[in-house]
Amino acid sequence: MSEPGPVGEFGLIDWIRARTRVGGRTSLGIGDDCAALRVTTGADLLATTDMLMDGTHFRLDEAGPEAVGRKAIGVNLSDIAAMAGRPLAALVAVALPKGRAVELAQGVLAGMGPLAQRYGVDLVGGDTNAWDGPFVIAVTLLGETTPDGAVRRSGARPGDAIVVTGPLGGSLLGRHLDPRPRIDEALSINRRARPHAMIDVSDGLAADLGHILAESGGLGATLDADTIPIHPDAEALSRRDGRTPLEHALHDGEDFELCLTLDPADAEDLLARPPAGVTLHRIGVVDAGPGLRLATGGGLVPIEPRGYDHLG
Amino acid sequence: MSEPGPVGEFGLIDWIRARTRVGGRTSLGIGDDCAALRVTTGADLLATTDMLMDGTHFRLDEAGPEAVGRKAIGVNLSDIAAMAGRPLAALVAVALPKGRAVELAQGVLAGMGPLAQRYGVDLVGGDTNAWDGPFVIAVTLLGETTPDGAVRRSGARPGDAIVVTGPLGGSLLGRHLDPRPRIDEALSINRRARPHAMIDVSDGLAADLGHILAESGGLGATLDADTIPIHPDAEALSRRDGRTPLEHALHDGEDFELCLTLDPADAEDLLARPPAGVTLHRIGVVDAGPGLRLATGGGLVPIEPRGYDHLG
Repeated sequence: MSEPGPVGEFGLIDWIRARTRVGGRTSLGIGDDCAALRVTTGADLLATTDMLMDGTHFRLDEAGPEAVGRKAIGVNLSDIAAMAGRPLAALVAVALPKGRAVELAQGVLAGMGPLAQRYGVDLVGGDTNAWDGPFVIAVTLLGETTPDGAVRRSGARPGDAIVVTGPLGGSLLGRHLDPRPRIDEALSINRRARPHAMIDVSDGLAADLGHILAESGGLGATLDADTIPIHPDAEALSRRDGRTPLEHALHDGEDFELCLTLDPADAEDLLARPPAGVTLHRIGVVDAGPGLRLATGGGLVPIEPRGYDHLG
Repeated sequence: MSEPGPVGEFGLIDWIRARTRVGGRTSLGIGDDCAALRVTTGADLLATTDMLMDGTHFRLDEAGPEAVGRKAIGVNLSDIAAMAGRPLAALVAVALPKGRAVELAQGVLAGMGPLAQRYGVDLVGGDTNAWDGPFVIAVTLLGETTPDGAVRRSGARPGDAIVVTGPLGGSLLGRHLDPRPRIDEALSINRRARPHAMIDVSDGLAADLGHILAESGGLGATLDADTIPIHPDAEALSRRDGRTPLEHALHDGEDFELCLTLDPADAEDLLARPPAGVTLHRIGVVDAGPGLRLATGGGLVPIEPRGYDHLG
């Protein structure tokens, strides 16, 4: 390697290790064959993994390694949020382009730092590789359930109110690289209102709500077009591509807001007195029959739950 | 996709899910934002991750996806073995070459099956992606400690006997694709003899023993050349490349045998009455001073702990 700083794989690992502080929950961090963690007695362990590839989920040349690191941990934190879980620790595996390996690894790590610190995530392990291919990063995030329990996708019931935590659409303009995981919001909401089902909006509102409805036994939903919060980025993107802002709000992915369903009375109470720092929008109702519909001034229109197919 | 069988990302996930049975430890498997697991009360969670890339860790065209799947879970199981842990669950993230995505995913999964079943590993989550790049797979394996505790790299003491569980060298001839993780062996050894330090031989005996010695405070070791068990593959490779079989045994990686250090009296007892199914070779002694030496008929020769640098 011609870069200054740590040399080779083990030099890099030592460099990372020297800059990694772990909390009391981590019995054993970087530097052994496995990490070891203490899970709270009575809690379930939560685990999720996401792989991001240069040219698919980001453009390394445009975004830079810091943004990639931020996104890689952010999308996983968002999955922990979607269960109303508490994050604990991360493992980070990378395939680094040869010649830039150390520089990229340092950038990625720097990018992860603020989100990891804010949410108490220990970096406990990983795997560093270099190759002639594009940059690939896979983060596995471990967390645990709280005494309020995990919120699954599968618990929606006919008549449930559908609620989202923020405006949607147009994340491609930059927000997709800067997830704001709704960890604190999810914990507050779960403590107050015990949602029946929850998911984070990563594939697009229609697709992700579709996952909830499918997992809950083939239910449907009617969304009220006027109440779906539309992000300014969706308006901006609409002016460029001619698709309506509402289409962007329904089908763009990577907003990383939460979509939840809950008892309508609980929704009313929650929206009347939202937990501190939590924004909530009631956007529709769960139906007993299948299918996703949009209620507009002109009547009911079916919504195709297209979303993003990562194999497409 | 032109392949028969499951269509698209969600079709593939459904296909995998329908073929995945999970045990009683998994509260929530594939199909939600996170998996949820029960860790035994009092046990520590163990976590490890390894990323394998086409052209670096395997050649997809030669090995086929089944062998890649077997290796990907095998190397991670070997890391759990190195801690004397019990495996629980796996998360599998893949970047699949477009056009072959579904076929490859199915092959990888089929290859993982036997090792997963044998060691009680539930497939609880993952991430499926397709791209124009080479095949990449990252497996994260979760396990837990037993009441006998985890064996770290850092506990070696001067005077400890150094023991390995099988012959070394020449894994490149094929064994590197077919790890036999020493899970059962590690559990038996830990129950009987409480090793002070343990690692699996993935970077090469000299390098991995070097990790133990470095983590244990900068100790050294003297290996007895006559007692290091040499694999027939090391002999075969030696005839091809002119390096000695012993060089291969010392420096080739991916043998996935265990290397451990323990009290010499415990070693004597263990070797005199090895646990059922466990092969053991005593190959040297831990020294108080740093440096790795080889005792030969002609005296002491220093060993360079080169091994494999994944960023090299």
